[in-house]
Amino acid sequence: MSDEERHPDDVQQHLREVQELLSRQKLVEDLVFRQDMPRHDLVEDLVHRQHIAELQNRLDELHPADIAYILEALPLEDRLFLWNLVKAERDGEILLEVSDAVRESLIETMDPEELKAAAESLDADELADLAPDLPPEVIQDVFQSLDTEGREQLRAAMSYPEDTVGSLMDFDMVTVREDVTLEVVLRYLRRFEELPDHTDKLFVVDREDHLQGILTLEQLLINDPEKQVGDVMRTETVISFEPDDDADDAAQAFERYDLVSAPVIDSEKRVIGRLTVADVVDYIREESEQEILSNAGLREEEDIFASVWDSVKNRWAWLAINMVTAIVASRVIGAFEDSIEKLVALAALMPIVAGIGGNSGNQTITMIVRAIAMGQVEQSAMKRLIRKEMGVALINGVMWGGFLGAMAWWLYGSWQLGLVMTSAMTLNLLLAASAGVLIPMIRSRLGRDPALGGSVMITGLTDSGGFFIFLGLATIFLL
Amino acid sequence: MSDEERHPDDVQQHLREVQELLSRQKLVEDLVFRQDMPRHDLVEDLVHRQHIAELQNRLDELHPADIAYILEALPLEDRLFLWNLVKAERDGEILLEVSDAVRESLIETMDPEELKAAAESLDADELADLAPDLPPEVIQDVFQSLDTEGREQLRAAMSYPEDTVGSLMDFDMVTVREDVTLEVVLRYLRRFEELPDHTDKLFVVDREDHLQGILTLEQLLINDPEKQVGDVMRTETVISFEPDDDADDAAQAFERYDLVSAPVIDSEKRVIGRLTVADVVDYIREESEQEILSNAGLREEEDIFASVWDSVKNRWAWLAINMVTAIVASRVIGAFEDSIEKLVALAALMPIVAGIGGNSGNQTITMIVRAIAMGQVEQSAMKRLIRKEMGVALINGVMWGGFLGAMAWWLYGSWQLGLVMTSAMTLNLLLAASAGVLIPMIRSRLGRDPALGGSVMITGLTDSGGFFIFLGLATIFLL
Repeated sequence: MSDEERHPDDVQQHLREVQELLSRQKLVEDLVFRQDMPRHDLVEDLVHRQHIAELQNRLDELHPADIAYILEALPLEDRLFLWNLVKAERDGEILLEVSDAVRESLIETMDPEELKAAAESLDADELADLAPDLPPEVIQDVFQSLDTEGREQLRAAMSYPEDTVGSLMDFDMVTVREDVTLEVVLRYLRRFEELPDHTDKLFVVDREDHLQGILTLEQLLINDPEKQVGDVMRTETVISFEPDDDADDAAQAFERYDLVSAPVIDSEKRVIGRLTVADVVDYIREESEQEILSNAGLREEEDIFASVWDSVKNRWAWLAINMVTAIVASRVIGAFEDSIEKLVALAALMPIVAGIGGNSGNQTITMIVRAIAMGQVEQSAMKRLIRKEMGVALINGVMWGGFLGAMAWWLYGSWQLGLVMTSAMTLNLLLAASAGVLIPMIRSRLGRDPALGGSVMITGLTDSGGFFIFLGLATIFLL
Repeated sequence: MSDEERHPDDVQQHLREVQELLSRQKLVEDLVFRQDMPRHDLVEDLVHRQHIAELQNRLDELHPADIAYILEALPLEDRLFLWNLVKAERDGEILLEVSDAVRESLIETMDPEELKAAAESLDADELADLAPDLPPEVIQDVFQSLDTEGREQLRAAMSYPEDTVGSLMDFDMVTVREDVTLEVVLRYLRRFEELPDHTDKLFVVDREDHLQGILTLEQLLINDPEKQVGDVMRTETVISFEPDDDADDAAQAFERYDLVSAPVIDSEKRVIGRLTVADVVDYIREESEQEILSNAGLREEEDIFASVWDSVKNRWAWLAINMVTAIVASRVIGAFEDSIEKLVALAALMPIVAGIGGNSGNQTITMIVRAIAMGQVEQSAMKRLIRKEMGVALINGVMWGGFLGAMAWWLYGSWQLGLVMTSAMTLNLLLAASAGVLIPMIRSRLGRDPALGGSVMITGLTDSGGFFIFLGLATIFLL
């Protein structure tokens, strides 16, 4: 099997091969267009076609996820060239795998018929994922082409808000009855062409689809086939979800209990779908990506080959907010211009107070947000946490503030200035610590996402607050 | 099954119950200690014991991951009280589930005998995960108690560096030969008490353990039992890893190909272990946590109930670095004190230039780091990316810089000041864009982690650079 074995680095290898083929392809095109020798046209056309055929062959062999990966890594022009070479029936699965930004760039180039064909190759839950990016008339057409069950599933899948279990679940599953023997189950499974992906357990249901228990493939395989399903199925500690459950909670449960799949049930305990670890892994990755991006002020994942204008739009909102907080801070300084004119050292020292306050506040808020996300902070712990963070801020303030105060004294020869520096640092760190605990705690109590925009708020606060505290103290005590 | 059903919110419920039991427990203790009525001692002692028994019963029913969760959410004192109630044979699995910081706090209270007992209940790969936190003499003792195979596995597991496949793999797996029928495999499996966790495929090997192919449980179940393993096993596109492979690549492969388990082979294609999606999910979660924490300047995940002093240590390094860059920026301002004295408006405007530059640089660097991590940026794309980021910076500079220049003009009545503001903004955004592309690209070319410390470097650069550019331009053109 040595030749066919796949290795994690292979997708990089695939990418390089495709790039190689593409660049040879371009070389030929350049020749065709540039050279004015009609006799050679035919030959070059042949070479051209041969390269395209080679590329197409390579693509046909690749896993849809690998093609998605390659499409993401190519500049727009090459990406669309390659996209046209992909077999129409594979379009759907590939569109599911690429990132939102790249998906848009691909869908833009497809006509309604192609989109319809691509969409029809998908399951209801996959279709629901793709639907927001498709033109309404395409969805309408696809919907018409489904059978009643398919329509109902699609309607259900599209009805659940993002970040719920319902939006992640699929409808593929194998159910069995509890009053049959394992032998019967084994024979039943042999009638399948294939099992749904990630089938590690069968759902045991009654006639009305009410969940009775779980028969893992393990139990099915290690037990005597004469035994009844009801005797070996698990009925205790069965982990199931409801479609309205928070996807975050489900992801944590998958992680905590090492699940591969779990049933999704409605309020009457009827099995209506299934959640698999593949969906959960994708969700975890997307969520953490989203958090890292939004921390840096990016609205969404950016196609690195996006146009300059698309990038500007993606980064616009954050820069605008940032500018507002910067202008506020600037006006705080403006209010103390007289003081700065009298003692210009203040201008050089004030960014230190603001900057370190911002960093320290970000440390606190990050820690609190993570603890809240893990469900580990009861509101009752707030006082204790504030006390602790105040303690940390006090130590840092005295230690770093003391050092910076000494530096200011040494630089500007005024121990009073040093003392103001130390006091301002300490006060701003205390402000940062209390805001770092309070902002996410209050947001979470109000039912908002504690993470969102916390970093902007706290940096805005410690900037303006730091300037105000430092310049205010200096004005009172030094001038 | 209604009563035994488990729901993702249940762990929160468990936490509240344990907290309730703990607080009742404390109430009783308070009575015992405070009241001076010897007659009542006996009664209170009984109540006391009854509560402890109740707590112990609750704990015995819980999944080790749930106990870990509860331990994490409790203040140190309660945590250690509860830890003593946990049955000794469960200590090992629970220690594996808690975070590093909490694990340390638990291990500190255990004596060598307890640690040895906890360690001996674990598999070699789990032991290797725990080993760095255990005292050397405990590891030595445990090592002595293992059989030859166990010793070899432990030695192997401990020999692989963190972030490699070897450090994540386990040694539990089921292998079969290709020249037997599925019926034989089914009978073979029935002799197992249980299958290894996450067994979705059996590894087909020859006499020397060389990997020949993969028999999925699906193929085993849907095919006629008379067929030979060799006829239904998959030999193409078998995804396998080597122990030295990068864990990141493996995690991406698991995500991309929706794997549940995969064989780990040595250089001669002998199967030596197995990688499962549970390990990969834990790895993905830890990595993204680590990235979010280090972005905020936290060395590692912090036990939110850690002592003030532990927290200070965890946040120390970043604040020190931040202070160095702040002092450098302050000295840049110090060099222009004469200019600020003459035109104090500069002091109020300069933080805007520095701040927005820093934010914009962070957007660029975050995007580039993510693209590099996904392997989507060839070094050859550098020029193209720099050109694009420069374009974005130019548009933002002219747009936001223009707005801020107009504001400066309006506030201070000097169009020259406005022009300097706009130019300085644009130049600092261009500096931020080029540094945002170059820093991670160069780090990655040098084989370093492109993410690490990028944010600190770029903020330091745009702060000092922004002050220098703005104050420098002002000094040249306005004074």
